[in-house]
Amino acid sequence: MHTFKSLLLGVSLLAGVATSSAADKLSKADLAAANTLRERALADQTAWQVVESLTTEVGARPAGSAADKAAIAWALRQMEHLGLTNVRAAEVMVPHWIRGEAECAVLAPYVQNVPVLSLGGSVGTAPEGIEAETVMVKDIAALAALPPGAVKDKIVFFSNRMQRTQDGSGYGLAVPMRTMGPSAAGALGARAVVIRSISTSSDRFPHTGAIRYQADVARIPGFAISNPDADALERQFASGKAVRLRLRSTSRDMPPEPSANVIGELPGTDKSNEIVVLGAHLDSWDPGVGAIDDGAGVAIMLGAAKLIHELDAKPRRTIRVVLFANEEFGTSGSRTYTAAAQAESTRHVLGFEADFGAGPVWRLSSRVNPAQLPVVDQIHRELAPLKVARGGNEANSGADLDGLAQLGMPLLSPDLDGTLYFDVHHTANDTLAKVDPAALRQAVAAYAISVWLGAQYPGEWENVAAAKPPRR
Amino acid sequence: MHTFKSLLLGVSLLAGVATSSAADKLSKADLAAANTLRERALADQTAWQVVESLTTEVGARPAGSAADKAAIAWALRQMEHLGLTNVRAAEVMVPHWIRGEAECAVLAPYVQNVPVLSLGGSVGTAPEGIEAETVMVKDIAALAALPPGAVKDKIVFFSNRMQRTQDGSGYGLAVPMRTMGPSAAGALGARAVVIRSISTSSDRFPHTGAIRYQADVARIPGFAISNPDADALERQFASGKAVRLRLRSTSRDMPPEPSANVIGELPGTDKSNEIVVLGAHLDSWDPGVGAIDDGAGVAIMLGAAKLIHELDAKPRRTIRVVLFANEEFGTSGSRTYTAAAQAESTRHVLGFEADFGAGPVWRLSSRVNPAQLPVVDQIHRELAPLKVARGGNEANSGADLDGLAQLGMPLLSPDLDGTLYFDVHHTANDTLAKVDPAALRQAVAAYAISVWLGAQYPGEWENVAAAKPPRR
Repeated sequence: MHTFKSLLLGVSLLAGVATSSAADKLSKADLAAANTLRERALADQTAWQVVESLTTEVGARPAGSAADKAAIAWALRQMEHLGLTNVRAAEVMVPHWIRGEAECAVLAPYVQNVPVLSLGGSVGTAPEGIEAETVMVKDIAALAALPPGAVKDKIVFFSNRMQRTQDGSGYGLAVPMRTMGPSAAGALGARAVVIRSISTSSDRFPHTGAIRYQADVARIPGFAISNPDADALERQFASGKAVRLRLRSTSRDMPPEPSANVIGELPGTDKSNEIVVLGAHLDSWDPGVGAIDDGAGVAIMLGAAKLIHELDAKPRRTIRVVLFANEEFGTSGSRTYTAAAQAESTRHVLGFEADFGAGPVWRLSSRVNPAQLPVVDQIHRELAPLKVARGGNEANSGADLDGLAQLGMPLLSPDLDGTLYFDVHHTANDTLAKVDPAALRQAVAAYAISVWLGAQYPGEWENVAAAKPPRR
Repeated sequence: MHTFKSLLLGVSLLAGVATSSAADKLSKADLAAANTLRERALADQTAWQVVESLTTEVGARPAGSAADKAAIAWALRQMEHLGLTNVRAAEVMVPHWIRGEAECAVLAPYVQNVPVLSLGGSVGTAPEGIEAETVMVKDIAALAALPPGAVKDKIVFFSNRMQRTQDGSGYGLAVPMRTMGPSAAGALGARAVVIRSISTSSDRFPHTGAIRYQADVARIPGFAISNPDADALERQFASGKAVRLRLRSTSRDMPPEPSANVIGELPGTDKSNEIVVLGAHLDSWDPGVGAIDDGAGVAIMLGAAKLIHELDAKPRRTIRVVLFANEEFGTSGSRTYTAAAQAESTRHVLGFEADFGAGPVWRLSSRVNPAQLPVVDQIHRELAPLKVARGGNEANSGADLDGLAQLGMPLLSPDLDGTLYFDVHHTANDTLAKVDPAALRQAVAAYAISVWLGAQYPGEWENVAAAKPPRR
């Protein structure tokens, strides 16, 4: 039987169409429970209450801060309250960076004060700040194409504008000027970098986000200004006169701090040693209160788990919610968890991540062995009343499950609509006002159904070829 | 004839219908010129260039600042460049208030840092700030209804939310808690006031705007927080636990400074001693760059005047553009101008004001003697292709022409659409990104036509009963 099935699988792969045995089909009882989940999710307030509570009672919770520790205590309470078991905090060390204050002013040709944020992990300036002529380039390629010495002792302004997309792909294309720009400019002798925020908003919110300094280049400070201020700075350059900026930042690093991944489970029955993992992250950037990034993801996962817990039936596989520490500042929570998972006797057979806002879900994508595509189709049919399209089999996880995905863990991805996400992401404007309760309920419904049916799949979730790591 | 006409007028007023002689009708040539103005305005970039230049080259220009003086020099250059004559700066003394820094934190029940702005003219706090239990009330009436001593030594939080309207009427209803709230609370022994911003935005921008301290009450500091932060603060109160805030501000008054109303004209011909006045204000609040408030008004008025200047015909009445000093901080520009106008040999016969954003114009309102309503109808017909509705005869001016309106000067009011205005007004988000070039062109067209035909009216603009002063 096994041989025969493998043979069939081989044929179906050649033909580009997967197959599965009738025994792999989801049962009527499991599909009926999925229907119950959808109905209940669309009327359930749990996810809203979770994100409201997290943003009101904890608020901004950057890695290493006192609020980061408060968030761990909050998450343990929430998981116990919602009926999860094996609730625990697994320690993770995280960086502790202090934002301090930042200032940006245009000194010439036209004096203007500009709202600014230091980029995450940036070194500060000397107390008197930096004043220098400023060179505008579109991106790192344009910087590299300048004549030698062109930015020596100067400030570099990266002007490239992120494009708005539903799947968030505009972010990956634009973000290298933030992550790599400071070291690219530092290597050429520049004194500081200012970027146009990796943002799709026309509102005056600079964004933040991590720099990845190269180890072999002296660190220079990095700053971001909002789109309207970047437009205004471009108009200053358009005058044809020399542009001078003054920058000041008191950002600084502190010693690493303990934090934790917070974990809770709905134990499985006959396949309890197989883990269906639900990942979101508990930390946030500090300018906002982390409602869409990633309070909403925490809420979606806890809301979905609570609804599955309230079903009459128990899941066959163990459903494990992991609220990761420190997604924003180097993903040490994810790396710690991935290492521990490899040492566990249980096996991570399927992953879900929610780290792209508060919904709605617009598409169900996957990264599964093609033999399992029929069950993904079957799951998708249960999402159709939620107006969810069928995506391809090239899904990536978010940053937190990327380590497990690289090891071959299959992914189901109820794709959250990212059209408006980068209007708010990593800015002071990431507040509860940006969460639409109806969209959030729809997202909980889509996740709850997909997680439940993924846990009930009578067949085996087989490992996949390692995913290409997403850019972020 | 005069007696007969007055008799007719009396009858028409009783009947609620005005009349006019055939000789009062606008000429075919003047209407043809209006058509030319409309066509040219819809393709003209002048207004955009004006607001772009003002926001880029001057930026924020609060009364009394160095940028306020730079704005005067800028305006004189612009008027000369656009072909106005008798261009001059008429000195006005203005207050000089320094915003300094402001901080707001919730200390209990849940610690949160809250973006905040000091209200305009606020006194600062002691250097160590103010920490106190906080009492939430909806508005001044609710404050007055509290038991004696309820707010003594406490902070008062006014929670009322402004309503969104097309005509801006929601602002007048909500703004007393900003203008009067600090003295109302100060009179009851409160230590400071925090208000929900007079704003319709769900973005995290606190607004600013002037306090009117009562002379007989000790001044206490006033602050504003954004709508999402006010919502979050209401959730803290909903916990049932005591709410404590910490507030700090370095706001302070400096000695008054000289500023100026900037004035330029298109001289009239046979009725040159009659002034058609076009008012906008040159100053702005400091958190934004004053694009919609009131760079757009400056641009509309200069753009309209430039188009009229380029007609083959000269206006019969003198068209005078006045860019007022210090609208935001006590309207000393307006008061100085009104006093001077009463001493002039010329007469202000018709007023236009643009101080409500960048368009479009949605309605033509008026406040004219009913005998002149037929010409207003005739002017309105020329605006119909711009999708402008016909409003009533109860128009108010903005703040700058209010003094002249109180003296009986008739008003024509191409009403700017205020639906989105209070999303941005008096916040850091008042940038050029919030000006829609097409809406701005439409507004210039509506103003240019109305101003031109108002200047050409063959009849007499008769004084009206004093307008009720608008609330702001």
